[in-house]
Amino acid sequence: MAELSHFDSEGKAHMVDVSDKPVTSRIAVAEGAVMMSAETLALVMEGRADKGDVLGIARIAGIMGAKKTAELIPLCHPLPITKVALELVPDEGLPGVRITATVKTGGQTGVEMEALTAVSTAALTVYDMLKAAQKDMEISGVRLTFKDGGKSGRFENP
Amino acid sequence: MAELSHFDSEGKAHMVDVSDKPVTSRIAVAEGAVMMSAETLALVMEGRADKGDVLGIARIAGIMGAKKTAELIPLCHPLPITKVALELVPDEGLPGVRITATVKTGGQTGVEMEALTAVSTAALTVYDMLKAAQKDMEISGVRLTFKDGGKSGRFENP
Amino acid sequence: MAELSHFDSEGKAHMVDVSDKPVTSRIAVAEGAVMMSAETLALVMEGRADKGDVLGIARIAGIMGAKKTAELIPLCHPLPITKVALELVPDEGLPGVRITATVKTGGQTGVEMEALTAVSTAALTVYDMLKAAQKDMEISGVRLTFKDGGKSGRFENP
Amino acid sequence: MAELSHFDSEGKAHMVDVSDKPVTSRIAVAEGAVMMSAETLALVMEGRADKGDVLGIARIAGIMGAKKTAELIPLCHPLPITKVALELVPDEGLPGVRITATVKTGGQTGVEMEALTAVSTAALTVYDMLKAAQKDMEISGVRLTFKDGGKSGRFENP
Amino acid sequence: MAELSHFDSEGKAHMVDVSDKPVTSRIAVAEGAVMMSAETLALVMEGRADKGDVLGIARIAGIMGAKKTAELIPLCHPLPITKVALELVPDEGLPGVRITATVKTGGQTGVEMEALTAVSTAALTVYDMLKAAQKDMEISGVRLTFKDGGKSGRFENP
Amino acid sequence: MAELSHFDSEGKAHMVDVSDKPVTSRIAVAEGAVMMSAETLALVMEGRADKGDVLGIARIAGIMGAKKTAELIPLCHPLPITKVALELVPDEGLPGVRITATVKTGGQTGVEMEALTAVSTAALTVYDMLKAAQKDMEISGVRLTFKDGGKSGRFENP
Repeated sequence: MAELSHFDSEGKAHMVDVSDKPVTSRIAVAEGAVMMSAETLALVMEGRADKGDVLGIARIAGIMGAKKTAELIPLCHPLPITKVALELVPDEGLPGVRITATVKTGGQTGVEMEALTAVSTAALTVYDMLKAAQKDMEISGVRLTFKDGGKSGRFENP
Repeated sequence: MAELSHFDSEGKAHMVDVSDKPVTSRIAVAEGAVMMSAETLALVMEGRADKGDVLGIARIAGIMGAKKTAELIPLCHPLPITKVALELVPDEGLPGVRITATVKTGGQTGVEMEALTAVSTAALTVYDMLKAAQKDMEISGVRLTFKDGGKSGRFENP
Repeated sequence: MAELSHFDSEGKAHMVDVSDKPVTSRIAVAEGAVMMSAETLALVMEGRADKGDVLGIARIAGIMGAKKTAELIPLCHPLPITKVALELVPDEGLPGVRITATVKTGGQTGVEMEALTAVSTAALTVYDMLKAAQKDMEISGVRLTFKDGGKSGRFENP
Repeated sequence: MAELSHFDSEGKAHMVDVSDKPVTSRIAVAEGAVMMSAETLALVMEGRADKGDVLGIARIAGIMGAKKTAELIPLCHPLPITKVALELVPDEGLPGVRITATVKTGGQTGVEMEALTAVSTAALTVYDMLKAAQKDMEISGVRLTFKDGGKSGRFENP
Repeated sequence: MAELSHFDSEGKAHMVDVSDKPVTSRIAVAEGAVMMSAETLALVMEGRADKGDVLGIARIAGIMGAKKTAELIPLCHPLPITKVALELVPDEGLPGVRITATVKTGGQTGVEMEALTAVSTAALTVYDMLKAAQKDMEISGVRLTFKDGGKSGRFENP
Repeated sequence: MAELSHFDSEGKAHMVDVSDKPVTSRIAVAEGAVMMSAETLALVMEGRADKGDVLGIARIAGIMGAKKTAELIPLCHPLPITKVALELVPDEGLPGVRITATVKTGGQTGVEMEALTAVSTAALTVYDMLKAAQKDMEISGVRLTFKDGGKSGRFENP
């Protein structure tokens, strides 16, 4: 059965020893969405033109959130992040905003949590900036879609 | 049309002036879930008995995450939080873990973002602790279910 | 002679006791500028239309910086900030970007340091985002222009 | 025309990908000053002998500020700083306090922002500690004077 | 038997609800010591005259540490600290450095943890600054000596 | 006489330049204890079975505290921690809880402060969670017991 590496043999939580893992190039991509009414989404799209820039601010929050991952997630290792990029795209089909984050590092452990934290922080910021208009928005589909590098290798979750 | 209060009349982002709002008792409840396979959920439930305590650690992360809300969300006001509680319940029907957070304050603005941030941080921590077993878990249904207090009054989203 | 209130009678630094000061409404306004070449300023102004939004990002950084004041300045009291707003205005006369920050609180001590920290953080962010174009920009004229509230009352520095 | 590397080809802000840049030895030096009245400066100089040590405390704040750079400046990379030193020198000619910060790293990107943040934080701390004596001090001349290492090489700004 | 208030009736950790507790004036005093050889202590005492100021830097670290209490201790409430003062006294009798911290707030819960965190952070800083001279120093006797205010009233531990 | 490396030749504090030190594998182990009454210790031991998990929460706090070392201790270098593990063992002989922390890095400077900070943070958390039952507990014997790696080599303090 799969082992939960964050626990030692007695079931006590620890930050896993990665001292002997090689420094390799790693990448992770995560995505998620903020579901809202078509009316609220219209505010976002309008806003990009002549009102406040909801998506631009959420992008910055997501980038800064990625840098806070090791502070937020108890057993995460601090990592020298080398790239963070977020896409926030209004999607009238949902309706809502789709968020994708890409994070890279050259380190001894992966950046999956950094990518997921970037998406979550950006999604919370979108919620915050629109909650005066709609309180029953929903954050959903937050998941890892791709990772590569490190011993466990490539993972795709299309 | 609804106004986005985080922007001024020229569309520039600001932290809204709440100086003249009264200090009132406020509460917010948010929920969400981490969807996973039945096998992964079995690890969580087992873990509570004799291996690592995934849910206990995620609960602590959620409480600490609530306290970091104003650092993570650019336009949130810092607030004197007076209570944070999280419930993390394994649900074989999903299968997955259901998360609920309740936050209270006596302040000039609400704690919706604190409750949502608590849920998100706990969900990310659940993901982190189980990702060695399953990488395609998904965080979903993160939303505000209840708030009360302040000028906008009671909100229910069952 | 003026007393430096951050030191006790033996010259030892402490965080001044404000326990007995009343909670009053307080405001502070600070300003500063980032001096640059006309060419660099043109990039900023252009950028607002169809390239990256330097000033929008610096505004967010300034708001978030204000919330970090008590972490950065050793003897500052943590304060429940109730408003932060920043203006960043390109000025071809300098040439450069003029920055103004307004901060409010209802607390036992003033928000001068919060306003000055907001200006400094926004100015550093402007520098960071433009340094690929010009490295010899200069941050200058960072000063308090107005405060009101509290025992020491109104201060104007036009 | 110079490119602003913090924006992608569509003008969206991102943290630049430095994954493929070599780890090299890098240094940056920044300076700035806090301008004050001769009377206020006398307090600082006296203080070093038998009252509170304004400059010693500002030096510590500057060192700690350098370590917070990636938290304050949205698109800065976290870096393993290997040295921070600050000089704070009273200058009766200004009158005021001159501040110089030197920062080193072995990393994939430079430490210009760390040096500038160290100077700014130290300057704000000087202001904070002296504001009971004088409120119209001014922080000025904050600029990069030297950097070396990395692809863009040596820069001097005497 | 005494109840552990940080756990609910099912034994789950939470941040205790203090919403209905009155805002009262509270104070806490904690102490501790760093035990070292007489030779190392001589370095500290000498240092106050013409070398580095170990105790002055540890005092600043203790004050800043008090402000980080709610970030470090999972179930602590964030509190508007209104005063922090530390005494660090060389004691040739130990030999070592005695540390005392006094913290005040006007809040809904006490500042015992803030005072203890201030002492611990100052003690760790003393250790850090002297460890090049002696590695087997010891931090001991960290305890609460006095508190007052709030429902549980006065506590003395001489 | 031993030199205090955190001060330069004029006695000014700085963060020591480690740029030219090799990246080597380093480990540090620290220990400490929280002394309490037999009755309070009984609560801890009981708690592990069917009430709140004091030691589990303190373990998480210690791990997260280790990651905050460079923020708390003014002259500490930020380090890429590769492992943190804590043992918290009830000891009826004291009576109290014994705490041991092991930290590893591959860096240019040691992790002694990280191990000591982990122990201190865990000890403060134990105090916080039990203070409703006993206020005169004491944290003692916090010291480095082992380090290896780096120029100064192996150190044992049994």
